[in-house]
Amino acid sequence: MKLFSTALASLSLMATSVVQADRASSLPRVSPALERYAQDTVLGELWKRPGLSPRDRGIVTVAALVARNQTTEMAMYFQRALDNGVTPAELSEIITHLAFYAGWGNAMGAVAVAADVYAARKIGADQLPPARPELLPLDEAAEAQRAARVEQDAGPVSAGVVQYTGDLLFKDLWLRPALAPRDRSLVTVTALIAAGQVAQIPYHLNRAMDSGLTRAEVSETLTQLAFHVGWPNVFTAIPVVKAVLEKRPA
Amino acid sequence: MKLFSTALASLSLMATSVVQADRASSLPRVSPALERYAQDTVLGELWKRPGLSPRDRGIVTVAALVARNQTTEMAMYFQRALDNGVTPAELSEIITHLAFYAGWGNAMGAVAVAADVYAARKIGADQLPPARPELLPLDEAAEAQRAARVEQDAGPVSAGVVQYTGDLLFKDLWLRPALAPRDRSLVTVTALIAAGQVAQIPYHLNRAMDSGLTRAEVSETLTQLAFHVGWPNVFTAIPVVKAVLEKRPA
Amino acid sequence: MKLFSTALASLSLMATSVVQADRASSLPRVSPALERYAQDTVLGELWKRPGLSPRDRGIVTVAALVARNQTTEMAMYFQRALDNGVTPAELSEIITHLAFYAGWGNAMGAVAVAADVYAARKIGADQLPPARPELLPLDEAAEAQRAARVEQDAGPVSAGVVQYTGDLLFKDLWLRPALAPRDRSLVTVTALIAAGQVAQIPYHLNRAMDSGLTRAEVSETLTQLAFHVGWPNVFTAIPVVKAVLEKRPA
Repeated sequence: MKLFSTALASLSLMATSVVQADRASSLPRVSPALERYAQDTVLGELWKRPGLSPRDRGIVTVAALVARNQTTEMAMYFQRALDNGVTPAELSEIITHLAFYAGWGNAMGAVAVAADVYAARKIGADQLPPARPELLPLDEAAEAQRAARVEQDAGPVSAGVVQYTGDLLFKDLWLRPALAPRDRSLVTVTALIAAGQVAQIPYHLNRAMDSGLTRAEVSETLTQLAFHVGWPNVFTAIPVVKAVLEKRPA
Repeated sequence: MKLFSTALASLSLMATSVVQADRASSLPRVSPALERYAQDTVLGELWKRPGLSPRDRGIVTVAALVARNQTTEMAMYFQRALDNGVTPAELSEIITHLAFYAGWGNAMGAVAVAADVYAARKIGADQLPPARPELLPLDEAAEAQRAARVEQDAGPVSAGVVQYTGDLLFKDLWLRPALAPRDRSLVTVTALIAAGQVAQIPYHLNRAMDSGLTRAEVSETLTQLAFHVGWPNVFTAIPVVKAVLEKRPA
Repeated sequence: MKLFSTALASLSLMATSVVQADRASSLPRVSPALERYAQDTVLGELWKRPGLSPRDRGIVTVAALVARNQTTEMAMYFQRALDNGVTPAELSEIITHLAFYAGWGNAMGAVAVAADVYAARKIGADQLPPARPELLPLDEAAEAQRAARVEQDAGPVSAGVVQYTGDLLFKDLWLRPALAPRDRSLVTVTALIAAGQVAQIPYHLNRAMDSGLTRAEVSETLTQLAFHVGWPNVFTAIPVVKAVLEKRPA
């Protein structure tokens, strides 16, 4: 069974590589224009723009793909993220985080792709965050405020949602140390923009900037996302982001 | 051809099982944390919570996956739904319903997965709802009211949409007897929340509760969905659900 | 490598055909009702309705599938579009356009499917739009107005988004001659409705109608989309479309 499983992993990886080679070679057979945009912009100059590091572009792009369930592109961008300084532990944690912020099934799709990438790079269990790490300290005051707000909004509708939001998300997931709070917020904001969900952007964008995300990084996150989640989602997010920025001290 | 098709079905099923085995075994190789959340919560305690039966959790989860086109998870949850009392006829009807409420392509993706599951369980044509069953009686007054409202809203824009909404949806699909009106509404509300579409929640949630869905079931439907469509979609739906609940007699 | 790649293309195409045959034959094994709706309506009478040509229904359907990343249905509808008068160059350009209006990954998924379809139909590079064609003339006044509006809305938030929106989209992509401006707008409006994004419908629908899209075509585009993006997305779009129509001269 072990042997079979290893054989399967190799086969799966081989299939992934073949698919990628096939896709790369199919681009000029369908759209020479897209190949030009890919080489010049999406894979080229975009990643070299100032304002957001290539590592952070990796986080944003990977989060966008997982949030939109785009398994086709995942293997390539998981590798690009790892090549640009995202650690395997961080990538693991991004997928874990998005299980809750983009839906469980999206994370499961990403896990299958990541398993192949990790196997090919010989990334073992020792490089992954443990199931039950020592958690970051909880900011009790901020958490009490958050809990009160959610209790007021969601309490009369769903006690279950209120309970899991506290116990599982803010007192567990958000305190896992393998992904910095600033990165975790960047992933969350990306998931919201990727899904065209604007209502929760103010809370999470403020939280991201409170954790260190700069205005220049916000600006370039939107630029990176325009390509990966499409112009409409970014244009829908922009007025909401603008309102958040205007209310913050310069 | 028959033989080939049978061989294909076995092969396809085998591939599905292999993929599932592979996915299950890939979880610890990418995120031990996700494996813990899966065992403890998403596949465990969540399904045992009071307020919503395991059967109804099966309906909600399956509808969420079809609405979000998440084929990876479908085989597993189709089986879990069947194991918890959803009949093959009901599952067939859920997919049929979502062809209209989540888009034709979503249903086609689900059909391919369901065909494998049905073949493996030896579920034959005799267990499926007929193409043209005897329909449930139409509530003429309610239908006249609905038709008038849609004519007013959509009539000046698209006569075709108005026509099919009446002829195909409310005078045909909704009257098919293989899925109870209460379950059909639960599937519809799930599809709306899964897609982040709030505008039509009031009409369909009221209809669901008029057909027997309780407040406790609404509460736990949202809890179940938080995991399967992601927290943001559920938080976007909550204020709309709250407004509906407040307007109904307690 | 050339030989391998050709072998791969054949294999891939064979796999696609097998999957399609399998899917067609699996419909009656899961939902005889869906098979009836497919034959009678979705593949039948819908395409023969007046108001929107079969060619335009091909454009709308293909754009909806790409915008929703529904690769399962793509091969069939790419072929149907080509059979109804959409040229390979136009299909290529639709995919290219949607890379920006539905997200890069959606286009990449479509490219893989289109490459197989083109190979099977022996559609070569000579039938594709060049990477750098001579562009259509720019309407300087309209572009200045558009640029000013985007600068005002998005400038304070993301200079990168503003820059690429001008340089890459409105001064390049939109001026590529292989897809008529009217068709390009039809694809864009479809992508917005398919994604449940209403905020940008007014601008793009007005642009589409300024380029020649008629009220009858708008009406039937919504009818076609009800099936392919689901009723909820169409009902969410209808009030916005209605407001646009009411403000235009009859």
